Amino acid sequence: MNEHVSILGLGAMGRALASALLAAGREVTVWNRTPGKAGGLGAREASSVEEAIEAGDLTVVCLLDDASVRETLAPVAPKLDGATLVNLTSGSARQARRLAGWLDGHGVRLLAGGIMAVPPTVGTDGAFILYSGARDLFDRVAPVLAPIGRPQWVGADPGFAALYDMAALSGMYGMSAGADHAVTMVHREGGDVEAFKREVLGPWMEQMLPFMVGGADMSESVPEEYNPAMQATGLENMLAASQEAGVPEDLAGHLRASLWRMRRAAA
Amino acid sequence: MNEHVSILGLGAMGRALASALLAAGREVTVWNRTPGKAGGLGAREASSVEEAIEAGDLTVVCLLDDASVRETLAPVAPKLDGATLVNLTSGSARQARRLAGWLDGHGVRLLAGGIMAVPPTVGTDGAFILYSGARDLFDRVAPVLAPIGRPQWVGADPGFAALYDMAALSGMYGMSAGADHAVTMVHREGGDVEAFKREVLGPWMEQMLPFMVGGADMSESVPEEYNPAMQATGLENMLAASQEAGVPEDLAGHLRASLWRMRRAAA
Repeated sequence: MNEHVSILGLGAMGRALASALLAAGREVTVWNRTPGKAGGLGAREASSVEEAIEAGDLTVVCLLDDASVRETLAPVAPKLDGATLVNLTSGSARQARRLAGWLDGHGVRLLAGGIMAVPPTVGTDGAFILYSGARDLFDRVAPVLAPIGRPQWVGADPGFAALYDMAALSGMYGMSAGADHAVTMVHREGGDVEAFKREVLGPWMEQMLPFMVGGADMSESVPEEYNPAMQATGLENMLAASQEAGVPEDLAGHLRASLWRMRRAAA
Repeated sequence: MNEHVSILGLGAMGRALASALLAAGREVTVWNRTPGKAGGLGAREASSVEEAIEAGDLTVVCLLDDASVRETLAPVAPKLDGATLVNLTSGSARQARRLAGWLDGHGVRLLAGGIMAVPPTVGTDGAFILYSGARDLFDRVAPVLAPIGRPQWVGADPGFAALYDMAALSGMYGMSAGADHAVTMVHREGGDVEAFKREVLGPWMEQMLPFMVGGADMSESVPEEYNPAMQATGLENMLAASQEAGVPEDLAGHLRASLWRMRRAAA
């Protein structure tokens, strides 16, 4: 269980991962492109990617994007035979599948992951990490990395962790777009923004969340209890009210997305 | 406290209001444009608007839209002097202000409201009702209508309940647009939609909700901890991934709303 973990990448997320693992008593070695970023962490800093990967029983990769992962690993790839990598770098399903194929050709076992947390929530109760790839590899890695967030296996396809991660992020951006639009309306009409967020928007969105997630469908249909023509009218009224309030046009994208679906269902 | 409440309108929401009030021991009289809708409720059904308003100590109006409220009240307006109305019909801030002015001219005291619940959650713990208008009227009405949802006064301006209601609804549509988009991506790529909703999307959105609501601003700026250029790149990648997955263009409105804000901040 107490395996030695190496981490490539010490951005805000890499630091949060290292801290959570160190706090749980794991031995941690870190590497960052720009050296000297490990200050205050209490982890050992490796001077090269190769040294970092050799130091650990498994290596967590948490870099900017897929291109950075390729650039970082390409020079050492021929020496990686037998290594275990866990890629927690954000990217698309297609990128994850290609990376798995490339590393497989070098004798590397790869577990692909998606971090369902932001740096401040890494290691807290709500945080969870999606993994996809070989089930036996997940079973070995899960207890080692459990301190960063509850491990959750979503399938053997190495692209699935990224797919679910990106889809969930899209859900989050919807909340963000809706909240920004709401706050802008209240602000422009002279309401109390902080009271509105705390006493109205937060409790309301919390109350509605299970309905919105549970009822989400593939946009081929709308739930039976909806009258799509009435919903479309409501959405049109809301767009008109936004315009009256002087909310910038582009901020209303989430309303138009819902309107499109309702108009389509009502047609 | 045990005042007699009349309800105009027995759509899904009107029925839910009547049920919650009856369950709390209130005497309830109902009226609906199409008669015979009160079956099974246990409320007294009035045969005219006038009869309904006369039967109650206060009247709750819950109709389709502002135009229906005008049509329903116009014929009896000259006889309403001294009546107390609580309008829970959805509409805009401007409509609410005009209605208050018109009824004031007929000697009617109006409390404007916004129901922060859907019919199945009326009367449950999460439900709350926004009210705006004279504070003394709110203080009288709040305990009578408390069984439908926690009463919350948001100001003397009769338009504020509608403004906050509509803004909060816009927030909810953002969650809905995001969830629909997320589920469509997973569906198109052959993922397990039900498992995704239950095990990934729901817990993730629940974890992120306080950040999205708390961080929402007037789109004049982005939070300090964001790198807007990096966020914009992420959003562009997500749009590209949606396109690859064959998600209809219009469903991605919430992503474009966020992208617009990040591009603007990065410029």
